[in-house]
Amino acid sequence: MPTLQRLDPTTILATAAALSQELAANAVERDRTAGIPTYEVSRLRETGLLSLVIPQEYGGAGADLVTVYQVIKALAKADGSIGQLYGNHVGLVTLAHAIGTPAQKERDYRGTAQHQWFWGNAINTRDDRLKLSPDGDGFRLNGEKGFGTGIPAADRWVFSAVQAGVELPLFLAIPSDRPGVTILDDWDNVGQRRTASNSLSFDNVWVEADEIYGPPVDPDGAFATLPGPVAQVAKVYTYLGIAEGALEAARQYTQEKTRPWVASGVSGITTEPYILRHYGELWTELQAASALADKVAEQVQVAWEKGDTLTHEERGEVAVQVSAAKAFSTRVGLDIANRIFEVTGSRATATHYGFDRYWRDLRTFTLHDPADYKLRDVGNWFLNGVYPTPTQYS
Amino acid sequence: MPTLQRLDPTTILATAAALSQELAANAVERDRTAGIPTYEVSRLRETGLLSLVIPQEYGGAGADLVTVYQVIKALAKADGSIGQLYGNHVGLVTLAHAIGTPAQKERDYRGTAQHQWFWGNAINTRDDRLKLSPDGDGFRLNGEKGFGTGIPAADRWVFSAVQAGVELPLFLAIPSDRPGVTILDDWDNVGQRRTASNSLSFDNVWVEADEIYGPPVDPDGAFATLPGPVAQVAKVYTYLGIAEGALEAARQYTQEKTRPWVASGVSGITTEPYILRHYGELWTELQAASALADKVAEQVQVAWEKGDTLTHEERGEVAVQVSAAKAFSTRVGLDIANRIFEVTGSRATATHYGFDRYWRDLRTFTLHDPADYKLRDVGNWFLNGVYPTPTQYS
Amino acid sequence: MPTLQRLDPTTILATAAALSQELAANAVERDRTAGIPTYEVSRLRETGLLSLVIPQEYGGAGADLVTVYQVIKALAKADGSIGQLYGNHVGLVTLAHAIGTPAQKERDYRGTAQHQWFWGNAINTRDDRLKLSPDGDGFRLNGEKGFGTGIPAADRWVFSAVQAGVELPLFLAIPSDRPGVTILDDWDNVGQRRTASNSLSFDNVWVEADEIYGPPVDPDGAFATLPGPVAQVAKVYTYLGIAEGALEAARQYTQEKTRPWVASGVSGITTEPYILRHYGELWTELQAASALADKVAEQVQVAWEKGDTLTHEERGEVAVQVSAAKAFSTRVGLDIANRIFEVTGSRATATHYGFDRYWRDLRTFTLHDPADYKLRDVGNWFLNGVYPTPTQYS
Amino acid sequence: MPTLQRLDPTTILATAAALSQELAANAVERDRTAGIPTYEVSRLRETGLLSLVIPQEYGGAGADLVTVYQVIKALAKADGSIGQLYGNHVGLVTLAHAIGTPAQKERDYRGTAQHQWFWGNAINTRDDRLKLSPDGDGFRLNGEKGFGTGIPAADRWVFSAVQAGVELPLFLAIPSDRPGVTILDDWDNVGQRRTASNSLSFDNVWVEADEIYGPPVDPDGAFATLPGPVAQVAKVYTYLGIAEGALEAARQYTQEKTRPWVASGVSGITTEPYILRHYGELWTELQAASALADKVAEQVQVAWEKGDTLTHEERGEVAVQVSAAKAFSTRVGLDIANRIFEVTGSRATATHYGFDRYWRDLRTFTLHDPADYKLRDVGNWFLNGVYPTPTQYS
Repeated sequence: MPTLQRLDPTTILATAAALSQELAANAVERDRTAGIPTYEVSRLRETGLLSLVIPQEYGGAGADLVTVYQVIKALAKADGSIGQLYGNHVGLVTLAHAIGTPAQKERDYRGTAQHQWFWGNAINTRDDRLKLSPDGDGFRLNGEKGFGTGIPAADRWVFSAVQAGVELPLFLAIPSDRPGVTILDDWDNVGQRRTASNSLSFDNVWVEADEIYGPPVDPDGAFATLPGPVAQVAKVYTYLGIAEGALEAARQYTQEKTRPWVASGVSGITTEPYILRHYGELWTELQAASALADKVAEQVQVAWEKGDTLTHEERGEVAVQVSAAKAFSTRVGLDIANRIFEVTGSRATATHYGFDRYWRDLRTFTLHDPADYKLRDVGNWFLNGVYPTPTQYS
Repeated sequence: MPTLQRLDPTTILATAAALSQELAANAVERDRTAGIPTYEVSRLRETGLLSLVIPQEYGGAGADLVTVYQVIKALAKADGSIGQLYGNHVGLVTLAHAIGTPAQKERDYRGTAQHQWFWGNAINTRDDRLKLSPDGDGFRLNGEKGFGTGIPAADRWVFSAVQAGVELPLFLAIPSDRPGVTILDDWDNVGQRRTASNSLSFDNVWVEADEIYGPPVDPDGAFATLPGPVAQVAKVYTYLGIAEGALEAARQYTQEKTRPWVASGVSGITTEPYILRHYGELWTELQAASALADKVAEQVQVAWEKGDTLTHEERGEVAVQVSAAKAFSTRVGLDIANRIFEVTGSRATATHYGFDRYWRDLRTFTLHDPADYKLRDVGNWFLNGVYPTPTQYS
Repeated sequence: MPTLQRLDPTTILATAAALSQELAANAVERDRTAGIPTYEVSRLRETGLLSLVIPQEYGGAGADLVTVYQVIKALAKADGSIGQLYGNHVGLVTLAHAIGTPAQKERDYRGTAQHQWFWGNAINTRDDRLKLSPDGDGFRLNGEKGFGTGIPAADRWVFSAVQAGVELPLFLAIPSDRPGVTILDDWDNVGQRRTASNSLSFDNVWVEADEIYGPPVDPDGAFATLPGPVAQVAKVYTYLGIAEGALEAARQYTQEKTRPWVASGVSGITTEPYILRHYGELWTELQAASALADKVAEQVQVAWEKGDTLTHEERGEVAVQVSAAKAFSTRVGLDIANRIFEVTGSRATATHYGFDRYWRDLRTFTLHDPADYKLRDVGNWFLNGVYPTPTQYS
Repeated sequence: MPTLQRLDPTTILATAAALSQELAANAVERDRTAGIPTYEVSRLRETGLLSLVIPQEYGGAGADLVTVYQVIKALAKADGSIGQLYGNHVGLVTLAHAIGTPAQKERDYRGTAQHQWFWGNAINTRDDRLKLSPDGDGFRLNGEKGFGTGIPAADRWVFSAVQAGVELPLFLAIPSDRPGVTILDDWDNVGQRRTASNSLSFDNVWVEADEIYGPPVDPDGAFATLPGPVAQVAKVYTYLGIAEGALEAARQYTQEKTRPWVASGVSGITTEPYILRHYGELWTELQAASALADKVAEQVQVAWEKGDTLTHEERGEVAVQVSAAKAFSTRVGLDIANRIFEVTGSRATATHYGFDRYWRDLRTFTLHDPADYKLRDVGNWFLNGVYPTPTQYS
């Protein structure tokens, strides 16, 4: 099984682009059937992208986050689900690096590089129905959890759970062959249909003590709270990828099929003034959102590299920018996904084109956490100098 | 079979509201299965709504267009497809009144009142593939036609066709048992899925001479061009109905299921500041669009009542207002259909709620003819004093 | 001095339109010099508009609010300041009708009809610096007050003040020759420059007991809280008037002076696609805002006519609609005032055209109370069924 | 007189920031009085910024365009007029580099570095009233020209003129003591009031043959058309500077003076949910526009450095991005300048704060050339692969 050995970004992105093109070919059909993304995950594994972010010393390709985010975007351009799945994978693989012990970091990195594990999760801390309780040397999980994204196709699972007497939720990782986890077949949502974000129930699931992440090197340090922003930016790039896919699909359709409106007075679509202006506006918005995201990605990478020397102020600065990028890409993405129909026309609504899936995917995934609170956080910093409270969302 | 005998608007609207409620109950399922709207048409027939617009002297209920549009809106609130189908039906039943001979007007009105015909059509004049050619006392139709909305469920069909040597397209009506029309099963679009807007092919279909509409009493008069605006306003009310349905469905969901965001600092959704403001804004937009539409509906009714005394200037004034209302309701409708998810939240994307169908329906149907040219027409009148060129769209 | 004797709306509006045209001729100059609106008030007096809203039994023209609001709009079209001044006047003249004793109602109506009083005010209840204290048979006013709109040109003044031991602020009216009120010359704001909304200081100003409004016939009734919505709608029509004035001024400029952009490929401005579309969009927005306002004006008039039989629920329904209309006209007005430059061009920024005054006037006056809370109130009603708390703003 | 000797960007930007702060102190007053920017130009001269962009080999500081644009932004933050004047100066100083002969390039660079010339211009090629005609060894200028930005305060003047029999307009530079040019005192526009963009009349003004620019090294090369994009980006950074100035001024006002609305239920402005969200949104938009501009500035610098090796394709790619950045910063800037009042409140409209000048400046300067055609150009490239036609605007 190949891995990308310290490849330069160009080669990595070419690999991602090739896989994206491959996935685009049957994306409409997979959107329709939904189901388990076994095929997509196997292709990620075969192309070596699963160990992309893993440092070279642990056997990975050692790509920086800037490059990894571009890969997420390239994949999401073909298929929003795979963008989300891969983005989550990256966040989960690197989780121990930030919140785990050094041994856990090594275990996750090395294990993933060696076995090409794909990671899935159900870590929504707002959902507190999953209970962890001590049992001998280890623990037991009982209860339920929603939004188990990628769980049915994953080799490693990360969950958040609550324990009586422990204030904060705990994060833990177990292998996917651990008995007692039942995956319901209930993910049937309007978008991101191929993420298999099913509900889960847990019946006395065994958890080893060292499968619970932490404590990190500096439990009170800013670095232990960086996974939130890292994961948020993965979402941003998924949004941008979907939006870019929408705009390019629309362009191809307009070029090939759209006719100028009867009253336009122009002979061909290439001189239709409103369509040209709409495309100009949509592309411009996407450029602005991408430029902002790219700047933010650089900042996240700098913060990531600082590791335990990252200060809370530096972390706060990053979080503000991430929130801004997330809110902005949400707005732009939805605008593009909605308006592509105005530059393609009535016949472009035929189901077989699948042009509505861009809106359905973005509409679904951008609700992950509300943009209103992202903007409030930004405003609170700008007006009051207060950094966002570190959470898994901010 | 009951008919609504000169009922007052309140009773008519109560009938429409009851049918709407009935249709809402299985709208999500019908959206999924698409197919022929036989059930919906039979319910329209049973409630007597098919002869609502027919003047009393021809056996109808004699409702004015203002009331009829409200019925369209009430139906569309449950299901965009039925709104479009019923709106089309109204436009087709009244077509002979404006562009037909007095005998054709009587034939269509009286026949519909007596037999409770449902009307379907394929009258897109941009599609010139359907050819009419003389054959003895009558004519033959050969060729193809797209977007045959409601055709499979209709009793009477209206088509537009072109004839060699005749400049303008011709409109004609035939019974649905006329041999030679093949209905393809190819309507599979992202929205308005239950309109059965299939493609049609015509193989030497016989057409009686008097099945071709016209000439009207005053072929050069403005009244003969009024069906365009009449039909456009039917679309406006369909959009508004869908938007209202979306907003009310969202409200119910928010009331019952939405929780305030974890960082909101409020204990219940009823005091969540952003959700309140979003709802306020969406409802306000809908009120503005409705107020504009209602004003326009009154103007259309006045113009309709003028009949052959309607001047081209009066017709032009109406057309400008209709264009404005159509562009504005398009914008507002899409905004509502898109943003309802921001006031309901992530779980509201579950397919079984069917909340995406509002956007899919509006997105599909608002592409009927481009809003850009509606706005251009309005601007051309405002700046240059030029009325829109009378077409089936303006 | 003429009064409008039960004139029909057409005649009233013709009077208003003529005055509007007269005021438009020197509006740019008056905007520049600001100062006291003595001239404008004298013209209002001479045309009889000051007693327009006064019932016929008290010597007025007995116009309903629907007509009065149209007059406000017509005046504001020429000059936002006069729209605001006249709108305030209407609210103040009718204040005693709602919150005063029957004697006060008669005094204000009859006095205004007889003497053609112009009314000014400083009734911002957020500003609690003006203190009322008992003194013998009457009271004394001491302190300060901001935003004394129209005070220097008014014959009758209305103030709000607070009294120790009295929970709610009190409203009172005194003649403008009452000693002890000092009008500062400090109104120098970017818009509504001719409203003379100066600060005031009060030095032991005498107030008769019956100059303090109330108690009304039913102190706990809804009617006593109706002046808030009545005044809010006056603001709505001022906004709409300014917006309409902006759009018409822009049109005339474009017609006379604007040239198509060099790259447009069109020979004249009448076929420039983007300018046509912009005008279409701006006019459409204005139509929607006007249609909503007109519907609301009818509702306010119905509520006003109910008088003491008005229920709190009816009052609440009106207040919701008023809030919606205010927020919507704010948005539309600002959009128009901002975008007229895009359809006129660079040279239209010359100061002597005064095209920026539309934005300055709207920007200033729409801040009267924040649109965010208007929308929140609407949303709170739509989602939670809660009517706005009756205040002078809602 | 000091020059900035190959200073690092940090020092340069510190100089610009200091001058900006100085200019901000009396910007409101200078906006009011308008007039000739003699003071501003002298301060630019004294700080050495006039030779910032001049290569070191000609005696300048050799700053790249990326740095120069940041200086423009810093200056515009205090005062839009100085941003425009300095941006123009940079474009004019570098003009000979692109469209002149090597000798002209040397003359302009060296002369400016040595004498600290400030450059002004009237080069609107749409205005073809200025005629150039041969006269002996040289030429004569007769006619008129509008928008002579900075002319009264400049040492060197650049004009565009037309010559009979010559297809394209010619550009020429003359010293400001050349007889025959009359500067009208007619610049009185709503914004950018301190740019002294007066009209000019020319009476037989002598022009030396070598004062007419060109031919460049490669007259058909792409580099000779690069001044258009270079100057457009200067406008972008002026817009961004004004917007940033607006947002920071608003913040300071809100912090110091704004009170939460009476119905907000919050005790201080720091927790007012709508104000926080507005600030978050406005800052986010500005970040997106800035990120896009910064990316574009890098591209322009790369293109500039290529000089005569720049291909038409590379030039086209840059022009597309520049158009996108210009349209986007226009939209964002106007939104910020309009909405700052919603986060400051009614009292912030007092003239002495001067908060309306941000809108007046942006509204005026963004009309330089219409954003609609910028977006059309972008769309034409995205849809049709056609680069913008090289002009002084694109």
